[in-house]
Amino acid sequence: MRKPLFAAIAAVFAVSAVQAAQPSLSAELREKAKAIIQPIEPAKIDHPAKVDLGRQLFFEPRLSLSGIISCNTCHNLSLGGVDNLKTSIGHKWQPGPVNAPTVFNSSLNIAQFWDGRAANLQEQAAGPIQAPVEMAMPHTLAVAVIQSIPGYVETIKTIYDTDVVTLDHITDAMAEFEKTLVTPNARFDKWLKGDDKALTATELEGFKIFYESGCIACHNGPNLGGNSFQKLGVVEPYKSTSPAEGRAAVTKKDEDRWYFKVPTLRNVELTYPYFHDGEAATLEDAVTLMGRLQLGRTFTADELKKVVAFLHTLTGERPQMPLPLLPPSGPNTPRPDPFK
Amino acid sequence: MRKPLFAAIAAVFAVSAVQAAQPSLSAELREKAKAIIQPIEPAKIDHPAKVDLGRQLFFEPRLSLSGIISCNTCHNLSLGGVDNLKTSIGHKWQPGPVNAPTVFNSSLNIAQFWDGRAANLQEQAAGPIQAPVEMAMPHTLAVAVIQSIPGYVETIKTIYDTDVVTLDHITDAMAEFEKTLVTPNARFDKWLKGDDKALTATELEGFKIFYESGCIACHNGPNLGGNSFQKLGVVEPYKSTSPAEGRAAVTKKDEDRWYFKVPTLRNVELTYPYFHDGEAATLEDAVTLMGRLQLGRTFTADELKKVVAFLHTLTGERPQMPLPLLPPSGPNTPRPDPFK
Repeated sequence: MRKPLFAAIAAVFAVSAVQAAQPSLSAELREKAKAIIQPIEPAKIDHPAKVDLGRQLFFEPRLSLSGIISCNTCHNLSLGGVDNLKTSIGHKWQPGPVNAPTVFNSSLNIAQFWDGRAANLQEQAAGPIQAPVEMAMPHTLAVAVIQSIPGYVETIKTIYDTDVVTLDHITDAMAEFEKTLVTPNARFDKWLKGDDKALTATELEGFKIFYESGCIACHNGPNLGGNSFQKLGVVEPYKSTSPAEGRAAVTKKDEDRWYFKVPTLRNVELTYPYFHDGEAATLEDAVTLMGRLQLGRTFTADELKKVVAFLHTLTGERPQMPLPLLPPSGPNTPRPDPFK
Repeated sequence: MRKPLFAAIAAVFAVSAVQAAQPSLSAELREKAKAIIQPIEPAKIDHPAKVDLGRQLFFEPRLSLSGIISCNTCHNLSLGGVDNLKTSIGHKWQPGPVNAPTVFNSSLNIAQFWDGRAANLQEQAAGPIQAPVEMAMPHTLAVAVIQSIPGYVETIKTIYDTDVVTLDHITDAMAEFEKTLVTPNARFDKWLKGDDKALTATELEGFKIFYESGCIACHNGPNLGGNSFQKLGVVEPYKSTSPAEGRAAVTKKDEDRWYFKVPTLRNVELTYPYFHDGEAATLEDAVTLMGRLQLGRTFTADELKKVVAFLHTLTGERPQMPLPLLPPSGPNTPRPDPFK
């Protein structure tokens, strides 16, 4: 009888010892993490009617000259708020110059676009509508289309108390909708809030490497990125396939060349391929290159595996929403023309 | 006192007389209509898990070679189950040969496609995936992509009890989803079921003209069409901008040239432009041309207005559904290539 009992007790202690090691590392790391990373909180909806209108407009292909491209084409909310292409395909199948950034949690970014040329979501929303390689729709025509659709005019009257549609109504509603596109309850956030069991030992070690090797220096804040502009290619220059020069396009300063907004790592499992030119196909590629270019560091195969495991814990709950039903065109709605 | 009372009684009688005329016409027309048109009934869902999987696949851009075209691109469920273009835009911005028919109520059609070359929805679903001007995705690659996505493999295992994905699983689930895309409770259906107030006098007169002038000969059944192949250009030949020759492409019989499946008139307000080549921009254009080409009849302006008013009563309740969330690609998922 004693042997089995002893064996059982030993087994219990052994398991406890393994489990105990992790909470101690876990607690220490959590304190460090909490000083620099915040969990994503559910969206507070101030204007439900604007959110509903913004959702319709986000899915509205009549905001494109061709009539088939909507915001959701490249920022696909069924995927990771992206199109998973190197660079997006726009009007007449033209490739865009940069990789489409995710719209999820974008309200937490310091600015919008890779070069931060839009101060906020409302300013951002106007860009792709008119960009010739994206939706190619002159703003005046976009406004005329919405003004010609009775269902939209009625909704805009209710919300903004006017019969005259402006671009500001369109982009304001879109921005209000986009503010709701947050992804709370990632396993990492659960861990950050105190749940030791939310991460495996491997994932936790991955975060430790991420923290200690310096990734955290740029990928911090609630979005693990998105809150600063940094040079791509600090230790070693990056040879890009994209003509984009980054922040310099906005500031017109030579020293801002190759500075880009640090991308969020939230839902990074879903937002491949990576970098502003989409040239890193996998998380392994991206982490390897980042280590070399930014930190002058070559991760071992084991480190790489662990960091990637950690990155997978940043996938949150994607927003659930009804598919919006769009109001029918009116008799005078300008008709789309894909070949214009 | 008497005069006002008499006036009031006379007024009541006058109003009753006007109101009575309509129910009498209404009842008579209803009996005729019920013999040949059936209301749309809500969908019965036999396989909810298949419907959910089918909805994901319907919105799945990874079923296209480019990675950005899904079934929903051309059969947009936020609109009328169509793209509202003359002919659809597909892979590399190629125009399709014919106008995209609505997916709403398509389970009620005798066959699928304008020429009826697919016997049912499952057979239809396979077509656009592989068509070079649509999604341009070889079936083998489509199956390989779904097989490589762990979330889909798991779901297919649960439903079909196998680890090996086939095209049949994909198209079976899509067809089950599409069967749910019915649009009940159109005002016309409410009238058909006995609600005299569901139609205005003008709309009812429009239906009377529609019935008596012979439109009903082809546009009947629950879908007001979709249940026969008919020659386009009976009285007068139709000069089409489309190379499509209709039913002859399937039967290889010369006498079937210009025979097309009669399109449904359900939700016709939402499914512009009209005809297999999309050349009729408005309902007024379509009714005018149909009268001339098929019936040798020129509708007066008043008749036209009334028939169009009736057609607007065929708009049903579009299906409400959640936007599906798609499972992430696996490590070996073939990556899309828009320029292949």
